[in-house]
Order: sequence, then structure tokens, then C-alpha cells
Amino acid sequence: MKQRSALDMYANGTAWWDTSISDIKKNEIIIRGYPVEELIGNISYTQMLYLLLCGEILSEKKAKLLESVLVAGADHGPRAPSIAAARMAATCGISFNSCVATGINVLGDVHGGAVEQAMRLFYSTESLLDAHPEQSVSSVVKKQFERFQREGKKLPGFGHQLHDHDPRVKRLYELAQQLVKEGEIQGCYLMIAEEYRLQLERWKQKNITMNIDGVAAAIQCELSIPAEAAKGIFALSRGMGIVAHAFEELQNGVLIKGPCPNRDDLVHYSGPLKRHLEKK
Amino acid sequence: MKQRSALDMYANGTAWWDTSISDIKKNEIIIRGYPVEELIGNISYTQMLYLLLCGEILSEKKAKLLESVLVAGADHGPRAPSIAAARMAATCGISFNSCVATGINVLGDVHGGAVEQAMRLFYSTESLLDAHPEQSVSSVVKKQFERFQREGKKLPGFGHQLHDHDPRVKRLYELAQQLVKEGEIQGCYLMIAEEYRLQLERWKQKNITMNIDGVAAAIQCELSIPAEAAKGIFALSRGMGIVAHAFEELQNGVLIKGPCPNRDDLVHYSGPLKRHLEKK
Amino acid sequence: MKQRSALDMYANGTAWWDTSISDIKKNEIIIRGYPVEELIGNISYTQMLYLLLCGEILSEKKAKLLESVLVAGADHGPRAPSIAAARMAATCGISFNSCVATGINVLGDVHGGAVEQAMRLFYSTESLLDAHPEQSVSSVVKKQFERFQREGKKLPGFGHQLHDHDPRVKRLYELAQQLVKEGEIQGCYLMIAEEYRLQLERWKQKNITMNIDGVAAAIQCELSIPAEAAKGIFALSRGMGIVAHAFEELQNGVLIKGPCPNRDDLVHYSGPLKRHLEKK
Amino acid sequence: MKQRSALDMYANGTAWWDTSISDIKKNEIIIRGYPVEELIGNISYTQMLYLLLCGEILSEKKAKLLESVLVAGADHGPRAPSIAAARMAATCGISFNSCVATGINVLGDVHGGAVEQAMRLFYSTESLLDAHPEQSVSSVVKKQFERFQREGKKLPGFGHQLHDHDPRVKRLYELAQQLVKEGEIQGCYLMIAEEYRLQLERWKQKNITMNIDGVAAAIQCELSIPAEAAKGIFALSRGMGIVAHAFEELQNGVLIKGPCPNRDDLVHYSGPLKRHLEKK
Repeated sequence: MKQRSALDMYANGTAWWDTSISDIKKNEIIIRGYPVEELIGNISYTQMLYLLLCGEILSEKKAKLLESVLVAGADHGPRAPSIAAARMAATCGISFNSCVATGINVLGDVHGGAVEQAMRLFYSTESLLDAHPEQSVSSVVKKQFERFQREGKKLPGFGHQLHDHDPRVKRLYELAQQLVKEGEIQGCYLMIAEEYRLQLERWKQKNITMNIDGVAAAIQCELSIPAEAAKGIFALSRGMGIVAHAFEELQNGVLIKGPCPNRDDLVHYSGPLKRHLEKK
Repeated sequence: MKQRSALDMYANGTAWWDTSISDIKKNEIIIRGYPVEELIGNISYTQMLYLLLCGEILSEKKAKLLESVLVAGADHGPRAPSIAAARMAATCGISFNSCVATGINVLGDVHGGAVEQAMRLFYSTESLLDAHPEQSVSSVVKKQFERFQREGKKLPGFGHQLHDHDPRVKRLYELAQQLVKEGEIQGCYLMIAEEYRLQLERWKQKNITMNIDGVAAAIQCELSIPAEAAKGIFALSRGMGIVAHAFEELQNGVLIKGPCPNRDDLVHYSGPLKRHLEKK
Repeated sequence: MKQRSALDMYANGTAWWDTSISDIKKNEIIIRGYPVEELIGNISYTQMLYLLLCGEILSEKKAKLLESVLVAGADHGPRAPSIAAARMAATCGISFNSCVATGINVLGDVHGGAVEQAMRLFYSTESLLDAHPEQSVSSVVKKQFERFQREGKKLPGFGHQLHDHDPRVKRLYELAQQLVKEGEIQGCYLMIAEEYRLQLERWKQKNITMNIDGVAAAIQCELSIPAEAAKGIFALSRGMGIVAHAFEELQNGVLIKGPCPNRDDLVHYSGPLKRHLEKK
Repeated sequence: MKQRSALDMYANGTAWWDTSISDIKKNEIIIRGYPVEELIGNISYTQMLYLLLCGEILSEKKAKLLESVLVAGADHGPRAPSIAAARMAATCGISFNSCVATGINVLGDVHGGAVEQAMRLFYSTESLLDAHPEQSVSSVVKKQFERFQREGKKLPGFGHQLHDHDPRVKRLYELAQQLVKEGEIQGCYLMIAEEYRLQLERWKQKNITMNIDGVAAAIQCELSIPAEAAKGIFALSRGMGIVAHAFEELQNGVLIKGPCPNRDDLVHYSGPLKRHLEKK
């Protein structure tokens, strides 16, 4: 992020809010140049998202692949913090959109955010490959992997608290490979991700599979989606589950619902024993 | 909302978090009964949203109609509060999902929320029609309209701060009528909405058109979507524009961007003149 | 809320952002007329809050009473939704202020918001008393109470999911009565609240105590705080506990913490049995 | 943040929610060992915040110094993103606490968050001084400063978009020095901050003053407040201005207020010219 001041840019003639995304006038809504009424009913949700974000219309096949990623991430049950926070919010008498926002607000670097980190890694690895055409994918990846090891950093895109054969991963990988076969996407990021998997597997001396963040990242790189937008895209994916769960909780009619019942193994006070203020 | 305590329900044997939406086990993610890998790549974003929210798979044609509503609401430029709040958030160094949540948090009753109010009106009008088959649509609607007038309430679904021939409305109406013609949807809510429009037109003695909230409401009623979920659905629609605009602002690299420049016609202090605390 | 358009007001000469609260210029920060450096170290947190919100400096004794209300509401343990949501947020890798915002976002009408409803009731009852000096407090209150009964509404300010002798209530009531005795506050709202308590007690034929919302409401009315600001004031009160709990969870170093463990009595799926999409 | 799983800790006997902050039972609220009713009316807002966060009662003088920091940061006018976002939110029909949360959500690393970065710097510098008692403050600081230069990082705590003689800084510095004189605080962090100021001044060859983040950071270090909590403390400080501004906007009665009027120098579309989808 370049460090610039909005006041300086305005003083130099840039409009305070300058955008290439949309132009709104009386009875006219232009999205990246297209009159919105020409888009409605003619492009999909995913194509609209991509158009807004990246400025172009994604082909139907590529759009369906991105749509698969959104569908895959939509829900992970009431124990996911994003879902639980939204469910509790729905019992507290706030506006329903605010219940959804409460859930989306927690989808940070540690809860869905690994996609962004994996994308950064894949993009930078691809740049290195571009810069060093004489080196093989596996040797470039090996060097990057070893750097991660030295820096004590965890490789994003592998491992999961629950699943070691995540049903979503195999399916997304399959759909992606089909598009490589059909020449719709290049496949270089999928290849890079696979190389990292192999490196990690050799190092850990056991089977390693990519996780949902890793395969989503590889696919989004294939589609030239910017890494910094990844947490926003996941917000619209998990947002579906958040909407559904918050609504279900609202229907229950329970008020002020906390995270769990009041039982000793669930909530415990380990602070100071009872004490009193000193007399002044 | 029935007033019940979560502790009472738990004491009576209900699980603290009881859900019909999803079941998460090791290597298994079941969404409303369907293994998630069978849904990925086989249903659309909108079908996934409807499945999570309402529990069934919407037909392709109905799903495309709902998708049109999501696409229609996706963006309304940088002066929409939801968009502006997210753009400012992106210049303040918070997690990107939190920029999106900031925008979604303001999509309340007055900013996209009229869809819910219009849906409640249309659903209750339909209930009255069901209960009184001997009365005509126009006479039932007339009575409800007169009640709104007496209570000094504004009819939701008509009028707009900017557009009087909103390009999105005509297009959505067209798509909806096509599905009525094909027998995919009944059309009774569209008819109810049209009756309200006629009533309002007669009363105001001038042309009145439905606005985007009104037509989105009628369509969502045709699809049996619950009114209370409307603000969540709009969050996923406008969420697309919010993601795109927040990302665009992030790319600018400006820091701590306020709503406008510091000019007298934009920011003005009309508080007390300079004064001082009394000596103690 | 009067329905006005910002564009109309701007067209009529009002600055887009017009405020009586503060004036910011280079090296100058004026708060309701006072240079901020004259306030720093000379007024308390509560006096600053009241000055910003209501425009005047509260006396030390009244400020201490308001401060007592803020201290009283600061925490209610990790099972309060506001606290739990913030604790989970702290394990998800978002900005720390966003953890705090996540918690504050759920302090709605049903979680701390009853203070606003009780204040509205007390203010409107006082208006009726003003308008009908010939009627006694108890007879005016009785009529309002009966109206609540008829409308099936729950009287705000009484009853609690857990406490029937809330330790905070007795203490706050005591502090408030002390200020009535010293002539610092009038005591009319405390009297109104007590009348409602008596009515409810007679009607339910059992001991009824005011709850924390009721006594906080009565006190805030004595200080002429606007009812619509109550949920904001509670946000700064509970905000203290939210900050502390979120920080404590952050220190634990646990990642992606959900609301509870995965046990059958805590999380249960009651949706459809496994099923499959129809072949297309 | 150590990487641990909540499920592992629970399996090893730790309660899911383990806290040293508060213990809530029927008619009993214990805060860090103290019955809450003994705190209400006996400790200040700041003392309650510190007790919750750090576990001990701050002396009155130290508490007043922290209170001065909270008062200093309370407001910076309607062009601050935190304030503007909350003001817009108040025109959109959401719960009032959610307006406040919207504002607090943007108080990130770039909007108030520099306090945390400055605290980290001061704490780590102090650790180096502890570890190298033979080195002078200025030589240790010089080395750290040079490291910042080499890494291209901006020193937190100095410089401001608007003020070069911030009225709040001088006043807070004064109050802090008074407590050093009285032996209430050590003054080592104030000294470290001053050394960095001198280094920056020598390097830039011009007058440099500390900014509000720098002096707040030095003071909070003197009080042993953890750096990672800084953005939460600022949330409660700026939260006061956010509450006041959101309420003022609510009173205006304007609906759906955007960031600025619709004028070409404020909002500009620089995207593609009008274009149309290709026929399928």
C-alpha cells in the first residue's frame, strides 16, 4: 500500500471518490461500462462478482469453476466461529444484516484467510518461475519451501483441524483439472500447489493432502483473482451459510443465547479468590 | 419471536446448537442431507443459498430468477453508505473481510431493508386473500392501503431517492413475467404488488412505478423466501459491490480516507463558540 | 425520525456534515466549544462522554453516578453473547478493534437494549404526569401498566434470566438515592420506576425487583440522557469487559475457537437423512 | 500466538471457556475476585477497565493519567473515517449499538493503531536496555532507529496528517511528567520516546514532535498495559465520539446519507465507456 494522502490527491485534481467500477445517474446504472439491465438475467452471480472486482466478463466455464469454490465454502456447521457468532447475534435483537456482518467480521487470516496467504505464495512462486525459466518447477518450489522451514512458517494450504480427506478438495481439484484438459485454464498454479504438496510430503514422511484453502487458492490464481481480495470472496461464500444459520436461530425464538450451557467443564473461573478493596 | 430461554430448552433435552442445515464430521460435510461434494459443480450459487436457507433445491429457472435479483442489487456506486463505509474501512488497516462486514453492517431497514417490509406486506395481503376468497384482490389491497394511510406509514416498494424509471425494475419484472407465462411461478405476489402500485397511483394522481425493493420483494415471495431473511440475501447481493469497491480503494494506497475533503460546504461546525471550564 | 433527504438539505445551504460537537483545525481541536487540552486531565471519562453527547459538563457528583452505571455493566462473563463473540473473534486473526466491534455489534434490543425501552417508558410517563398534574403518580403509572398488559408487552426493567437479587441493582439504587438526598438529582424517574415495580408486584402476586436495565434507565433519565443513545452508552460500558475478554483469549494462543466442544448434547443435526441430487 | 487447538486443550481437562476475569453465579458477579457491588461507586471507569484487563486496581493518580489518554482520543471530527462510518450507519435503520460497532470496526492499524506499534517498539527497546545495562539509552535507540531506516519502515509515534503541534500531545506529556516527578511512574518509556524523537529530528534535520499515538503509547507502557490491547483501549476512547456523532446524525432524521454530495470533483467514474455483452 503506497502511503498517500487523500487530501494531496484531491488537491492535484483527482476526485475524492474515483472509481472504475460503476457510474450512477438518474435512471442509469453502468457497471464497468455495461448498463445493468443488460447484465440482469444474462450473467451469473459469479460473473457479476468477477466483473465488479476484475473488470471483465469471465467465460461460462471459468465462472462455473469459481462458483464451485463459492459453493464449497458456504457452510461448516454451527461450531465454526463465523456461524456461531451470527447465530448468537440473531438472538440479541439487532438488524438481520448486522447478524450476517457479525459472522463475516471474524473471517480473518486464521478463519478462511489462509486462501490469501496461499495465493500470495503461488503468485510469487510463479513470478520466480517466470524470472528463471531455466529452473524446474520442483527446484524453485523446493527453495521456497526450505525458506518457509528456516523462517519457522507454516505452509498455507495444507492440513486441517478436522478433515484429512476433505470431500470438497477432491471434487474441486477434479473440476479444475477438467478445465485444464479443455484448455480453459493453464494449470500452472495447480501444478505449483501440487509441487508444494510433494515437498511437504517428503519432509513430513507421510501422506499430505491439500486443504480447501490450498485448492481454492490455486483455482483463484488460475482465474487471475487478486490475492488481497480472497477474504472478501470467502465472505460471500461463507456468507451463504451465515445467512441460513442466523435465520434458523432467529426462528427458534430463543433470546440472548450464549455459546454453551453453564457447566463446569465448559465455563470455569480461574481468577483470584474473593477479595476486597482496601479502605481508602 | 417466542420468548424462550436456551437453558430451559437444554434442560429439556434439546442440544445447545440444534440445526437442520448441516452435519460436519471428519471427512464428511452434509448440507440438508446432501454430501457437499455432490453439490459442488452441480448446483449454482443461488441454488446453494436457497438450499441452505430453505432446505430444498430450487429449479434452474427459479434459481436464475433469484440470481437476477442478486445481480440487480450488487452495486449502486461509491455514494451508497454501504459502499462508502467499506471503502473508508479499506484505508484503515483492518482485515479485508472486516472491510466487507463494515459495509454489510449498514444495510438496515432504510438501506435495502425495505424489501423485508414489502415482503411482509405482500405475504400478509396474500393471507387475507386466502382467508377471504370472496373478496377481490383490488378490494383487499385497497383496505390495506387505506390502513397504511391512516397509520401515516409509507408504503414499502415504491419511490426512490434517485430513479423514477429504475432500469433494474423493468428488467426484473420482465424476467418474472416470463416465468409466470411458463408456469414456473404463480404470479400472485406480482399481481398484489401491481395492485398496490395502482392504489398509490390513484391516490397520488401521478405515475408511480415500483422500485427495486418492491419488485425484489414480489419475486422473493413468489419463491417462498421468508421475509425475515431478506436483509441477509441483500447482504450477499450488495456484498459483491462492497467487495469490489473495498478492493479498489485498497489498491489506491491512500491511508485514513475520510468521507470528503475539508471544505466549508461539506464540513461545518455549528456548536458553541470557544469557551473555558470554570475554575474549580 | 423525520424523513428528509441529505441532498435536499445540502441544496438548501446546509453543510453535508454539520455538527455541533467538534471543530478540527490544524493544531486545534474544539469539543463543544472547549479546547481539548483544557479538558484533558480536568474532566473524567464520563464527563467527556456526556459533554460530547449532550453538550454540557456534568457536575462531579452526577458524573460519578453515571460512571457507576458504566462500571456496573462492564462484564457478565464469557457466556454473554457479546463477550463470547469477541473471544471467538480474537482467535480468528482479525484486527483487535474488530474483535471489540464484533462484541459490541450484538448489544441490541435484547442484550442490554432494554435500557432504551425502559427510558422511553419512564420519559413518556413523566410527560403524562407533567400534562396531568392533577393525577397521582400511581394512577398514571397504573394506566400505563394496564396498557402494556393489554398489548401483551413485557414491561422493560424487571426480571432477569439469572439474578433475582442482582447485586448491581441495590448498589446503584443506593448511590442514586444518596444524590436525591443531596438534592443533586430530582428523583422523579426513580419514583416512576418504583411505581412500575409496585404495579408489577401486585399483578404477579410475588416479590419483584428492578433489574440492571431498569435502574440504569431511571438513573440515565435523571441525567437527561436521550433514550436513543442508551445502547451506545451500554456499548462503552460492556465494551470494557469485551476488551478484557478478547485480550485474554488472544493470549491463550488458540486458533479458530468455536462456541463449544463437539459433543452430541451441544451440537446436533436434525436435518434430512443423507440424500442425493436427481440426475439431470 | 502459540498454535494450539481448543479441542486438544479441552481433551486435556481445560474448560472450553476458562477465564480469570469474572465469575458469574446467581446473584453474584465477581470481577477479578472483587464482588462487583464493592466496585460500583468506588472505582472509576478507568480503574474498572484496568482491573478487567490487567487484573489489579490502578492507583488514583495512574488511573487519572490513563483517563487523560482516553479523554484525549475521544473525537476528531466528522471527517475521521470511524466517525463518518458511524454517522452514515445511523441513517440506515440499524440498531444504535451497531452504528457504534461500525465506527469501532475501522479503528485499525492505520487509524489509531499506531499506538500498538509504538508500544511494541518502546517495550522491545526497554528489553534491550535491560539486557545491555552497559549501553546508554541513546546508543540502543540509535541502533533500533537505524534498523527502521534500513527496513524502510516508518517510525510509529511521530508525524500527523494535520497537526504538527497537536494540542493533546503537550498536555498529556505535561501530565505524565508530573507523575514522574511525584514518583508515581518511572518515566523510562517517556525517555525512550524522547530519544526516538531526537534521533528522527537529527535525521530529518528539522523539528519533530511526538504525535498523539506516540505519547499515548509511552504512557500506556508506563502503566504496563499490553501492546496488543491498545487498539481495544482506543476503541473505548474514540467510542465516545462515535456514540455522540452517531446520535447527532440520528437526530437529524436524514435517511441513507452517503459520504458527500454528488458533484464531479467528489465522485467520478473513470471506468470503461458504455459497452454491451457479446451475443451468445
